[in-house]
Amino acid sequence: MVTPIDPTSAAFLLAENRSQPMHVGGLQLFEKPDGAGRDYTRLMYEAMRDEAEISPLFIKHPYRSLSTAGQLVWREDEQFDIEHHVRHAALPKPGRIRELLELCGRMHGTRLAWERPLWESTVIEGLRDGRVAWYTKSHHALVDGVSAMRLMQSVLSTDPDQRQMPAPWGARPARSPRTTDLAEVPQDLFRHALSTGMGLTAEAAGLPGALIKTLNKGIRNETSAVSFHAPRTIFNQRITGSRRFAAQDWPIARLRAIGKAGGATINDVVLAMCSGAVRQYLLEISALPETPLVAMVPIGLNAKQSHVASADGGNAIGAIMCRLGTDLADPADRLAEISRSMSTGKDALSSMTPLQIVAMSALGQAPAILPPLLRLQGIVRSPYNLIISNVPGPRTTHYWNGAKLVGTYPLSIPINGMALNITCTSYDQKMGFGLTGCRRTVPHLQRLLGHLDAEVAALEKAVGV
Amino acid sequence: MVTPIDPTSAAFLLAENRSQPMHVGGLQLFEKPDGAGRDYTRLMYEAMRDEAEISPLFIKHPYRSLSTAGQLVWREDEQFDIEHHVRHAALPKPGRIRELLELCGRMHGTRLAWERPLWESTVIEGLRDGRVAWYTKSHHALVDGVSAMRLMQSVLSTDPDQRQMPAPWGARPARSPRTTDLAEVPQDLFRHALSTGMGLTAEAAGLPGALIKTLNKGIRNETSAVSFHAPRTIFNQRITGSRRFAAQDWPIARLRAIGKAGGATINDVVLAMCSGAVRQYLLEISALPETPLVAMVPIGLNAKQSHVASADGGNAIGAIMCRLGTDLADPADRLAEISRSMSTGKDALSSMTPLQIVAMSALGQAPAILPPLLRLQGIVRSPYNLIISNVPGPRTTHYWNGAKLVGTYPLSIPINGMALNITCTSYDQKMGFGLTGCRRTVPHLQRLLGHLDAEVAALEKAVGV
Repeated sequence: MVTPIDPTSAAFLLAENRSQPMHVGGLQLFEKPDGAGRDYTRLMYEAMRDEAEISPLFIKHPYRSLSTAGQLVWREDEQFDIEHHVRHAALPKPGRIRELLELCGRMHGTRLAWERPLWESTVIEGLRDGRVAWYTKSHHALVDGVSAMRLMQSVLSTDPDQRQMPAPWGARPARSPRTTDLAEVPQDLFRHALSTGMGLTAEAAGLPGALIKTLNKGIRNETSAVSFHAPRTIFNQRITGSRRFAAQDWPIARLRAIGKAGGATINDVVLAMCSGAVRQYLLEISALPETPLVAMVPIGLNAKQSHVASADGGNAIGAIMCRLGTDLADPADRLAEISRSMSTGKDALSSMTPLQIVAMSALGQAPAILPPLLRLQGIVRSPYNLIISNVPGPRTTHYWNGAKLVGTYPLSIPINGMALNITCTSYDQKMGFGLTGCRRTVPHLQRLLGHLDAEVAALEKAVGV
Repeated sequence: MVTPIDPTSAAFLLAENRSQPMHVGGLQLFEKPDGAGRDYTRLMYEAMRDEAEISPLFIKHPYRSLSTAGQLVWREDEQFDIEHHVRHAALPKPGRIRELLELCGRMHGTRLAWERPLWESTVIEGLRDGRVAWYTKSHHALVDGVSAMRLMQSVLSTDPDQRQMPAPWGARPARSPRTTDLAEVPQDLFRHALSTGMGLTAEAAGLPGALIKTLNKGIRNETSAVSFHAPRTIFNQRITGSRRFAAQDWPIARLRAIGKAGGATINDVVLAMCSGAVRQYLLEISALPETPLVAMVPIGLNAKQSHVASADGGNAIGAIMCRLGTDLADPADRLAEISRSMSTGKDALSSMTPLQIVAMSALGQAPAILPPLLRLQGIVRSPYNLIISNVPGPRTTHYWNGAKLVGTYPLSIPINGMALNITCTSYDQKMGFGLTGCRRTVPHLQRLLGHLDAEVAALEKAVGV
């Protein structure tokens, strides 16, 4: 069975090369349920592997041949082999988070072969604290990062006693015990997760014209949400295909308290943490530019704000260029600058036309497609230094077949000229940071975790929490 | 730097697809030296990863573009990243050989990406008996199976106290403490290993004409070493890209005793073991053909026998079609039949012209290239059912930086129509069997190990050892 590939998905496939594999990932940490045996991880792996029926999304692979007149199409994999996609791995000793992040970085640095469906999922044992890790990667042509996370979440439950729960690639829907109509509603939930992913990418399709228009206005400072005054940093170089991944979470309560005292949103605090950490990181290697770094921050806009509804009738996504205030020494000053920059950006965004906002959204959806377009316009410097996203997740504790989800961290896509990507996601009172970087261009990526931690403390002190 | 790819290597690259990745592999088992710490495997991995200089063979990758006029060439990988190629992995619990073989099968079923140098090497911890495993795969376009093994061996030493030994991909030669001229001789040894691999494939290059001629004679029964009367078996179907691997070794003393009592060579006994095991395996699934299976057996010929010297002035390789006697119920009868078939084959081979022998050698070197050629000649059925190779290895105990090599097992290339490959290698008084099969076409591959073991006992009983 052959189906067409929409233009945005095709663009992600064609933008891909060895240096910039176009897949997103997620790392989940689970606590085993009470009474779990020594072979619990194996049983968890087997449950995922033995999914009876696979959702069509996870069976198709891109294909191009004479019989398709040279067009790139989706084709069902007739030799689909679940054991290729669902894997069971273990960490070398001593089994710290460090070894886990190393393995994730390695798995994230390998390109998905087009000759098979574009996803892999690995259940990982060997953490010395006994937790089970689960790393999943999917090509951006299948799902974007947000949808990938929603898809994972759609199979979780708030009920620790629920069992017989499917894997995300299972064709059966997640069954929520709270739902009265068991047969119908979760199916919708599942479809929602998929349609969101598909909707978003479809939305961005065919929009380079509008995008260029918006960007041109940005150059002429007609739209203040677009800034083209990002300094050169080590992050804005050609990258290699190797990845390093760092992840950690912080209590949302701490971030909320800082925001409250500093008159800023939680998202502003997240940005301030990143700003302080990146500043310290660059200072240590004598690479901090004099002018402040600019982050591209995708934000959700409700339908009223944006005047435009996305495919699923929900929120549209815009992007704000946020000045990170990395030239300022005081954490409170940086937070204030970021807060100001984000407010101005949101105001500008809400005064944009629907077309402009949709075009802006392509910035967030298609970072890899953007640089060649910019170059066509004679813009050789990147308009921003890094991408910082913050994707809201579930607020309560969730389970998968009795295993308690205790942490969730996104892995994203560094591209040429954008070697570091920071994506955060909230879950159950914690804010999980996932830092994905090119192993060569961003040395000692792990240091950023220490700097992030120090920055939370510094912000608390600066705003007087 | 761009260099041409010789035609045989190019043929291996072009014959490759998702179902038949064209790499060979080796699994080595080491015992840790006395006093090794808990982090020994990590140190071993780091020693391999931190190789200061890499041999050119391991830095080049195949490349084709407009700038090479569409020609496939070798190009130096300018972003060479040793951490992509040298890996540290661990086995899930309970860390039996079963888990190790599962991991090796999985790693062997993944195609090497052309965008990087065509090899990977993984140091594996987590075996519950404390041994360290080492799996290495290299594309057949770089080295054939024999050369790959020799290359591995070239960095080993008989001295358990020797340290500072390089990895096989290190540009420095192995330093043997026995050698008086440290600077020169080991370098030659290393070059020898490489030139053998390159020589063999170069030898086979440009020979399809001669090959076809020999095969045509075979059809007309002019050369009895070529048989085209192999029955259809489950092994002779289209394969998928997934692999299963099984490995075990048996004392050569037991095989020698059987051979002596039965008037057969050790290689005959190896073939008889395979014959009995495959017979039992097929019987159990009601798939044993009435007529005997035929194995293609590559054999070494000394220069005098073959009238032809290979590139390194050493032995040439021929191939014998061996009737395995799987129609015979008695193990002794099967051994006698195999012994007879091998003798006849060797006689026929020694009466062949040099050109014919070199053409025959292409059978062993290029199983993947052969089927299309045969089809061109109207031969649609494969002339043999499986390939059984026996590659001699070192006879004494060897070490790598103090770690004692206790087992070595080859992984080979199943191809369409040839779903099972058995390759054996001798080492330190043991014969190691490596069985590589398509996971789907050869179900329950592991059962063959039990059958091989039973067959040794049955042969001993039958010949009265």
